Amino acid sequence: MEQSNHRLQLANWTKNINPSAMQTFLSFADSPDFISLGLGLPDCSLLPKTIVEKSIREIIVSDQNSFQYTQPLSSLKQQIVGLMRERGLFCKENEIFLTTGAQQGISLLVRMLLNHKSSIITENFIYPGFLQAIEPYAPILHTVSTHFRNGINIDDVERILQSDCNPTLIYLVADGGNPHSVTIPLSHREQLASLARKYGVPIIEDDPYGFLNYDNNMLPPIISFDSEWIFYVGTFSKLLAPSFRVGWLIVPENLQKHLSILKEGSDINIASFSQRIVSKILENIKLTDHVQSLINFYRAKREAIHAALNEYFPKDAVYYLPSNGIFFWVKLPDWINMHEFFECALKDYQVAFIPGEAFSIIKNSANKNYIRLNFSLPTLEQIKEGICRLSKVIAYLKEKI
Amino acid sequence: MEQSNHRLQLANWTKNINPSAMQTFLSFADSPDFISLGLGLPDCSLLPKTIVEKSIREIIVSDQNSFQYTQPLSSLKQQIVGLMRERGLFCKENEIFLTTGAQQGISLLVRMLLNHKSSIITENFIYPGFLQAIEPYAPILHTVSTHFRNGINIDDVERILQSDCNPTLIYLVADGGNPHSVTIPLSHREQLASLARKYGVPIIEDDPYGFLNYDNNMLPPIISFDSEWIFYVGTFSKLLAPSFRVGWLIVPENLQKHLSILKEGSDINIASFSQRIVSKILENIKLTDHVQSLINFYRAKREAIHAALNEYFPKDAVYYLPSNGIFFWVKLPDWINMHEFFECALKDYQVAFIPGEAFSIIKNSANKNYIRLNFSLPTLEQIKEGICRLSKVIAYLKEKI
Repeated sequence: MEQSNHRLQLANWTKNINPSAMQTFLSFADSPDFISLGLGLPDCSLLPKTIVEKSIREIIVSDQNSFQYTQPLSSLKQQIVGLMRERGLFCKENEIFLTTGAQQGISLLVRMLLNHKSSIITENFIYPGFLQAIEPYAPILHTVSTHFRNGINIDDVERILQSDCNPTLIYLVADGGNPHSVTIPLSHREQLASLARKYGVPIIEDDPYGFLNYDNNMLPPIISFDSEWIFYVGTFSKLLAPSFRVGWLIVPENLQKHLSILKEGSDINIASFSQRIVSKILENIKLTDHVQSLINFYRAKREAIHAALNEYFPKDAVYYLPSNGIFFWVKLPDWINMHEFFECALKDYQVAFIPGEAFSIIKNSANKNYIRLNFSLPTLEQIKEGICRLSKVIAYLKEKI
Repeated sequence: MEQSNHRLQLANWTKNINPSAMQTFLSFADSPDFISLGLGLPDCSLLPKTIVEKSIREIIVSDQNSFQYTQPLSSLKQQIVGLMRERGLFCKENEIFLTTGAQQGISLLVRMLLNHKSSIITENFIYPGFLQAIEPYAPILHTVSTHFRNGINIDDVERILQSDCNPTLIYLVADGGNPHSVTIPLSHREQLASLARKYGVPIIEDDPYGFLNYDNNMLPPIISFDSEWIFYVGTFSKLLAPSFRVGWLIVPENLQKHLSILKEGSDINIASFSQRIVSKILENIKLTDHVQSLINFYRAKREAIHAALNEYFPKDAVYYLPSNGIFFWVKLPDWINMHEFFECALKDYQVAFIPGEAFSIIKNSANKNYIRLNFSLPTLEQIKEGICRLSKVIAYLKEKI
């Protein structure tokens, strides 16, 4: 075969891509000696396998169309309507749009809203999957700061909305944000919803962790204050299992046709076998009971990591107990060189976390000494041991100064 | 809640979207009185349910990670390498990229290749899912004609490649094309591969029907002539079941990282439960035997529709017996008003097909009298009755003239 004189031309956006932490870490996560506080993986051990098996058997035996192209599953949409009621939102079946996980939900929404070089408002520390979803549109990002207690800085948001930036959307996580685990207080939710309406700029409310509330103080999602200007992204990945890839959007009925066309263009908008599995599982378990077990399970882990941080970490490390989600967000003392810390932890102490920089849009010195620690996947013993190992890395680095 | 003064701003592409035939027809497909020769649905009744059930049970019992985020499934990639060998292609595991169905494969490839307003070479009659996938990039389409026997017009393709159009990619289906069911002859495949290399313009070879060859004359895919410039799109939707949403790409290893990042941004690039199901089914059945049963099954249907067309349709209708795929592509006499024909068939005679215009980029009188008839889903009786009903519609319209 003769050499071609040509080089393949790729789309422009491919020139500035970064390798993803997700892919790098997934390869580590299997090794038994290694303690990973890195990825945001749920612990799926509480999912009752016998019920999953029974559910699938029922689908295969009784559902004539289970293998076929059919309309997105209405029964599942109805179940989500019921589920959202417990989340504090009254919505209708025709506002639910089923997706291949939350990531697809985000991806479809931004595709529906963004033009080339559209402007977007986000926090500086942000879920990297959102950046991946918007990257092809080469958007202009207007970042705002995050308050450790109150979340996204509302004054900053309004300042941008008042300016001539003409933003297309605001992206945020209101409960147990990723990476910073902040839960936005009630009054701020109402304000954010008002801002969206006042300025005609929709908010994408990504809610993977809203149901995982540990302190019996679950707040209604922002969409409960305005179902026209807030678009909600939900997922079963943290409630049942990520591998089913089933999520949903809640958007006004008049936008469903756009999403439907987008999803057809993306992976064909049909009832997948996974949608049927999830719907049948929801028939066969009481999801609120299962979620309560998950909450109890993760709460113990949250307490274990909190106790370990209190015991082992330097007193000038800053962190708060998160009421939602699966992460601790820790600011380490300035003298720590994050690159060295990360390398040493990973290679010499066999423990992984994710440096805050991986989530940061603006890379500057003020933003560089955060780390994100996951507590949902490791066992109680691994959590304690992992934090202890990290403290040893810190001690070692201190000696070297 | 006060009225907002604003109207939601959607991305520009949403202004010229068309409703999709897929969504419209899926709602009809369930009704028992109705005969649909419309959508390209496979007949899933040959898929052995007991084996699917057994496979899923094995996954749940023995695979510790079946519910979790993990790397795309290596075992499945290896199985695809074996499968492709029977398709006439020797490839390596690290050239396989797993997707959520073929549609996602197409969608990721175009996202990797296209910039805003890139140029594309396609046939005039084309799979609408491809148009949906490229629409957000507002591409410039250079259409070429299709020969009933030889497929895509190669001279036209080369003329465009020689011009200053600077096309980014060529899209085609080489075997049992959708909608026209043409299979490209061997010498043309080699020429197309040479053109791709000579001009440095990749071909996306979408191959949903290559395995479904009815005349024992399966040709190797175009990628077998050049694995650098041809990107292959495969799927289990027609071989096992669409609802699993499992497909694959074959692309050079150096492009895998781009696809991986794109898929993460789209729906997270992990081993889905469906990937595990498909892999386990492939362990538990001999796929070549299953495909042979499918071929025998569909061949009988192909013959039934051919016989019915010969018996009932006007002599000046033009069609050929397709060697691959699941469609007949029929050119009807010019005097037929397609809009009237379609309406009357659907409403008064309860039979559906898809007018060729739904697949046509250039809407002109030369292109307007084609229809696409699916023969994979209807039973032998429905096929005969469906074609008979369509002939009655034609007779009725003739009387009216």
